[in-house]
Parts: sequence; C-alpha cells; structure tokens
Amino acid sequence: MKLTILGCYSATPRTFTNPTSQVLDINNHIFLIDCGEGTQVELRRNKIKFSRIKHIFISHLHGDHFFGLIGLVSTFRLLKRDTPLHIHGPKGIKEIITLQLKLSNSWTDFPLRFHELDNPESEIVFEDEKVVVRTIPLQHRVYCNGFLFQEKEGDRVLLIDKVSGYNIHTAYYRSIKKGNDVVLDDGTVISNKELTKSPKATKSYAYCSDTKYDEAKISLIKNATVLYHESTFLESHKHLCAKTGHSSAIEAATIAKKANVKKLILGHYSTRYENIELFKEEAKTVFDQVEIADDGDFFEF
Amino acid sequence: MKLTILGCYSATPRTFTNPTSQVLDINNHIFLIDCGEGTQVELRRNKIKFSRIKHIFISHLHGDHFFGLIGLVSTFRLLKRDTPLHIHGPKGIKEIITLQLKLSNSWTDFPLRFHELDNPESEIVFEDEKVVVRTIPLQHRVYCNGFLFQEKEGDRVLLIDKVSGYNIHTAYYRSIKKGNDVVLDDGTVISNKELTKSPKATKSYAYCSDTKYDEAKISLIKNATVLYHESTFLESHKHLCAKTGHSSAIEAATIAKKANVKKLILGHYSTRYENIELFKEEAKTVFDQVEIADDGDFFEF
Repeated sequence: MKLTILGCYSATPRTFTNPTSQVLDINNHIFLIDCGEGTQVELRRNKIKFSRIKHIFISHLHGDHFFGLIGLVSTFRLLKRDTPLHIHGPKGIKEIITLQLKLSNSWTDFPLRFHELDNPESEIVFEDEKVVVRTIPLQHRVYCNGFLFQEKEGDRVLLIDKVSGYNIHTAYYRSIKKGNDVVLDDGTVISNKELTKSPKATKSYAYCSDTKYDEAKISLIKNATVLYHESTFLESHKHLCAKTGHSSAIEAATIAKKANVKKLILGHYSTRYENIELFKEEAKTVFDQVEIADDGDFFEF
Repeated sequence: MKLTILGCYSATPRTFTNPTSQVLDINNHIFLIDCGEGTQVELRRNKIKFSRIKHIFISHLHGDHFFGLIGLVSTFRLLKRDTPLHIHGPKGIKEIITLQLKLSNSWTDFPLRFHELDNPESEIVFEDEKVVVRTIPLQHRVYCNGFLFQEKEGDRVLLIDKVSGYNIHTAYYRSIKKGNDVVLDDGTVISNKELTKSPKATKSYAYCSDTKYDEAKISLIKNATVLYHESTFLESHKHLCAKTGHSSAIEAATIAKKANVKKLILGHYSTRYENIELFKEEAKTVFDQVEIADDGDFFEF
C-alpha cells in the first residue's frame, strides 16, 4: 500500500497548506479519501492519473473535506472521462453535486454513482476479491465516517517440497491453496496443515478524521497496520477538543495504543500552529510508533 | 482604479494557473469579480484583506467562475466576519451556497445577502455616491453577465481666482460646484461656466467573460477606460468559438475597436496553449492598445 498525503491541515486552504485529501494505492485501486478545495491541483502535482480514480470516499460534509469534489467531477467531464465514478459519502452529497451540475448545464457524460451513507453502524461500502472497505463511525459535529481499508487474506501458501513428496498432481494445487485436505489414491488423508503455510499477512489502513476522542471505534481498527488519526490540537488547546469535536495529539496516540496499531500517522492540524513537530513530540509520550503527515508526503507499508 | 488578476485561465485549475477571479479596487471598494476554485488562496498570495471584500460579482454558473465561492464564504465564517457580504450572481447561486451551509451545519454568523440576477437587459446592481455597477448581458452557453464599473462624475471644479474676483461668499461654493449660476447682490447673474471647469474625467472598467462575439454590448461599454474581454481561442481554433460560446483574440480586439475603449486586456485562455503572447500578437492586428493578463498581474488606470 502507498498512502499519499495531498493535504492534511484543517479549516482553510492557505498558500502552502492544503485541506484534507489523500490517495491510497491498494491492490491496484487508487482510492481518493476526502477532497478539500484544491485537491485536483494536488493530484496533478503528485502525478496521480485522474483516470485511475474510480472511488472517492468522503468522511463528512464540512468544507475542508469536500469543497474540491465538484471541481474534480467537472474536470473529469472536461477530460472526457467515460468510466463510472463512485462517490461514497454522507446523505446530501448527491444533492450538492447534482444541483451544481444542473445549474451549470454540465451533466457528466460518464456515469456518476452516488452511494450515500447515513448508517450509524459500521458497514461495508466496497468489496472485491482482494480488498474490503468499511466505514468507521466517528463522533464529530456532523455525521461523519472514517474508512477502514483491508486487504483480504489470500490463499494458503503451498509447501512445494511436501506436496512433491506425496506426488500430488498439480490439478489439486488450487484446492489445497484454498485450505482443503487431500485424499491420496490409497485413501490416506493428508491434512492441509502439512501441505501449506499461512498466507501472507494482510495489511490494513484506518482513516479517522474528523473525530473527538472516542473509544467506540477501537474494536474496528484493532491491530491495523497504519492508523491516520486527526490531531487538531496540542495540549495547550485541549480544552477546545470536546467543543469542536476534534482530538489532541495525545488523544490520537491513546487510541493508537489501545487499538494496538503498528503505526500512527497524525494530521488535520489546526492552522494556528507553526511547528507541527510538536504534535509528534506530544504523541510520543503515549505511543512510540508515530509519524506526522505533511502535504506531499507519502508512506509505504 | 487597480485591477488585480487572481486567475485568468479557462476550464480547470492547474499547478501554475488559476481559473477566473479578479479584484477591482475602485474608490475604496474592493470588488471581487468571479471566484474560481482556489480564489481564497490567491487572495492571500496577493495580500488582499478578506475583510475589505463586501461585494462579490459572479458572471455565470460555470465552475471555473464560482467553485471557489463556497470555500471563501466558509473562510469568512471561520475568520469570524461580522459585516454583511453581498453576492451578486445568477439565479440559483443562493440555493447552491445555502444548501452547502445547511448540510455542513455551518450557517454564517455574518449577514449573507444574495442579489440574484435573471434580467436579460442591463441593470444597475450596485450604486453609491461615487460608483455605479451595471450588468453587461453576455451571450454564453448559460445565463451570463459581464459587469461595468463606472466612477460617477464628481462636482465641477471651482476656478478660485474667478470666484474670489467676484467676492462670492464661501457659503455659495457648494452650490456653484453642483453647477448652479450665482446671483450677485446687485442682481447680476454670473454663469456657472465662468466660475468652474469640468470635473475630473471619470474612469470605467468593463469586465466581459464569458461570451461569444456579440456586438450588442458595444453601446454599454462604449469609451470604457479598460475592457477585459475573454479570448479563449487563437485563430487556429476559431471554429470552436461559436460552438462553445467563447471568443477569439481577434474577436475581442474587434469589440474593443468598435467600442473605442482606451485599453483592452485579454484573458480566459484555453489551457491548450503554451504561449499566451500569441493572443496579444493576434489581437494587435486589429487593435493596438492591448495587454495580456496573467495570474498575479495588476493594472492601474
């Protein structure tokens, strides 16, 4: 997986910082997660091919997470896209986008598919043979979801020496990889465990922004490979967290620790802070494996 | 007057070019004209104080002219603006903005006043003691207006030597400046012409984007100090003008010539062209006083 940070600051776009948007490259899918104003320019700057984006996931309807969506949809139209675009986001997003397309007399020539969300419980929003995407219900000032991107477990791995030793025909390999035992011609049953080892460990990416401190999501993101968790405030402003529905760096780190994730990435910094290194310093007092996102950064895992 | 070009390219925002937006500084008003995606960032880059913008004029509801408006309105809210903001634009703009404010649960704390336009004829959209703003109906694919910003003619200028010579009391000066004659104590009438000269010449700025070639607007913009006219295409693509409702550089220059404006500024270039100097070259074959706009440029007149 490769995560590219197009923008990771809260509130308003500024000359050198962008509101939230990121791209997850997972098993040949290019998923766009949130789409603040200016996202299409950041996609170009990061050389991400527009045509490869087929699914966009919007966490909530605050401007710093979706004001760039209508512009991106319009640009897809100008680029003469013809493949479907799927937009997963809160109820209301369809009305916002289609109203603007209607009033500008600019209907898309490509199929625009809205998948509106209003479920307060986690649900699967995308699934294919190799990847599943689930919502992570978040606690913010408006209806809001994070998203959990998980690789599916692959086939079991053949122990070739063992399989050859029993002189098993290759026609059975597929069945063995799926976890089945083998019955030899003489009726002997060879247990699958003897012939295979566990598949490659799967990876997962949990995106949690925006949210106040909330332990309810921990069971969903347990053991994630990487957790991106918003940290709008430092300790000096932690009194603002509850009121604004945001988290501090220490709160994000506490969630990471309790969920036993492998790595925490912080973002969604309030633009009041000059030095975002302070977020890392504060989070590290609780959880060691922490990195800070900045616009244009990427993380491979 | 000072005109600052925040963006002057058509269609999509790109890494180094912005869609349409400009700022006109006229008699202490800071008017924002159109508001493509990223306008708020360009306002910051050009050090224009957000709080001084009280009127925004939107020509039409194509994305490259208004997708930045909702972000700017939201930023005004985050900056705790408390003074009214007036938005003048095509019918529908109120629904687009208010729908997004409603769904993000982010009503502005400042008064947001919409002045929706649907008149096919020119009309006054703003007026105070010193400035008047009129629509310039344009021919595009959707309902579209340019805007004509005019200084009002000031008072006549007193010829102090003459006024003193007649020993006229200063109490009459205001009346004389307004163009009235003076009756001396002995009944003699002194003609105003003898006591004053014409007021300073007024200036005007005509903004015409987007539009196909259309001579109907010439009477409105006649003798303007500066005309900004869109020129989306060069001659090599002039066959696209009618179909797309846009103009070529030569068409823009022809309008400038027929309207006898003092200066023409070109903009709204198709992003297919690398070298915008070619627009100037082509326009100059018709009209000499032509300049090309580029993002970040300003013009004083």
